[in-house]
Amino acid sequence: MVKQLIFGHQNPDTDAIVAAISYSYFQNQLGYDTEAVALGEPNDETKYVLAHFDQKAPRVVSKVSSEVDQVMLVDHNEPQQSAVDIADVKVTHVVDHHRIDDFNTTDPLYYRAEPMGCTSTILWKMYAEQKVKIPAKIAGLMVSAIISDTLLLKSPTTMPDDKKAIEDLAKLAGMDDYEHYGLEMLKAGTDLSKKSAEELVDLDAKSFDMNGHQVRVAQVNTVDIKDVLTREAELRQAMTTESMNKGYDLFILLITNILNSDSELLAIGDETNKAVVAKAFKTQLQDDKASLPGVVSRKKQVVPPLTEAFN
Amino acid sequence: MVKQLIFGHQNPDTDAIVAAISYSYFQNQLGYDTEAVALGEPNDETKYVLAHFDQKAPRVVSKVSSEVDQVMLVDHNEPQQSAVDIADVKVTHVVDHHRIDDFNTTDPLYYRAEPMGCTSTILWKMYAEQKVKIPAKIAGLMVSAIISDTLLLKSPTTMPDDKKAIEDLAKLAGMDDYEHYGLEMLKAGTDLSKKSAEELVDLDAKSFDMNGHQVRVAQVNTVDIKDVLTREAELRQAMTTESMNKGYDLFILLITNILNSDSELLAIGDETNKAVVAKAFKTQLQDDKASLPGVVSRKKQVVPPLTEAFN
Repeated sequence: MVKQLIFGHQNPDTDAIVAAISYSYFQNQLGYDTEAVALGEPNDETKYVLAHFDQKAPRVVSKVSSEVDQVMLVDHNEPQQSAVDIADVKVTHVVDHHRIDDFNTTDPLYYRAEPMGCTSTILWKMYAEQKVKIPAKIAGLMVSAIISDTLLLKSPTTMPDDKKAIEDLAKLAGMDDYEHYGLEMLKAGTDLSKKSAEELVDLDAKSFDMNGHQVRVAQVNTVDIKDVLTREAELRQAMTTESMNKGYDLFILLITNILNSDSELLAIGDETNKAVVAKAFKTQLQDDKASLPGVVSRKKQVVPPLTEAFN
Repeated sequence: MVKQLIFGHQNPDTDAIVAAISYSYFQNQLGYDTEAVALGEPNDETKYVLAHFDQKAPRVVSKVSSEVDQVMLVDHNEPQQSAVDIADVKVTHVVDHHRIDDFNTTDPLYYRAEPMGCTSTILWKMYAEQKVKIPAKIAGLMVSAIISDTLLLKSPTTMPDDKKAIEDLAKLAGMDDYEHYGLEMLKAGTDLSKKSAEELVDLDAKSFDMNGHQVRVAQVNTVDIKDVLTREAELRQAMTTESMNKGYDLFILLITNILNSDSELLAIGDETNKAVVAKAFKTQLQDDKASLPGVVSRKKQVVPPLTEAFN
């Protein structure tokens, strides 16, 4: 069996890293020879998770084609979110919970997508279907990924199966109180004080092609939106510089309060593109900003209306 | 639950029609409200199958957006093979065994692809995963689809799971000798004498975008390639006319002997595009034709090398 790498998206979050670890274990049990890697260092939340479960962070790579001919993707499919040389390797498997965009293959492949709150929920089903036992440590990591992606089951992306998965996995992991653990874990990701503005706007950022427009959508979690906005000037500067360097037509920063599930949006771009943002969210931008009550999900509440507005 | 239509590709073959029927039954058992329809009349082979199992042919439609807002696709994903107004509806589910190409969504969805010989093999797994019982009639239809797509398990697309599926399904259908049935069924699809040349080159034809080139690949099954080639002049004429009318840059006809699994290829296009065909199959075209021993699968043996050669 030829060796394959498995990885999640650039700027990996907890689900991207955990799904790679979990899917690699699963596939190796089924006879594949895979290694979980990551397209970036773990963020503070993920570091907390890995330390809690005594799990080594996956090796960080940016290119893959010098190592392998075939890869498996988790938690993403869009090429601009993947390895920079993704076009040079063959994708044989995908497990994902996002829209499908600009993902083209020459050959048939394994593709498993479901509109669940978290990739790890889909993996939980796949373990059951193939009757592969989930080790306690991997179950704990998967619990963490579901907490992270669904903000403790409060995000509107949360599906009944996410709840079933987290409860079954918490049992397998021997976790008595995953809610208490989850809040500590989420808070570990919100200490933004030591990060530069450049780091903040790149921490959890993804690029999208929307009808030919290059759109960057970054998100930071916090327990105090106002506190983040004290740094608005330097955040704007970092977004403007990034847009010029990378050619983004529009850069959106979503500052999300994980306690009450509201977000503040900051949009950097020309007037036409900012008007598209206003249209997408049926609001007016005040000084390039808008309050979005109840908006916490980039995938479900930001990307679809924005894509529609650009079409 | 809002009503949805389920359908396979244009110019439906047995798998496209059976997968729609089988997936619709499956989803309705799980609580969806779906109707299997078809983007064309059943071919002679499929008519034989439907008559044998006393199954009504699905209603034929070409547009869907006047009836429903949401659809599920089986046995295809590429928009040019789908309903003409596929862009006007939301695709919520796909079950397929082909490459993914030019399939883009704004929202997450259910997508289940595996590189199996037949969509019905994937559906067979999904019934087992969800513990839905397969009725005898649907099992018989699914056996027929697997026989059709894999030419009685002889095509190189055949996977071990196709064999497992057909044997399990044949038992459920109470079929003692599916091989005898299969040969009769395949032969029912090879009586080409009553068909016009225009019908022959459209019977099982699919369009592909290959690096900006519009490529049409048609296939006819026969027990005597020479017999089909007695009509070469009128087949060429039909392919040329279709190319002019529809704007194909290249039109390939694959004439496949289902008994010995060889094919003859006929290519209509300009010299540049015909040179791509020669390069793709590492052969020389003689009078626009080439013998391709052992080639029976458009999906696995024709589309990938052709796509590579155009890239």
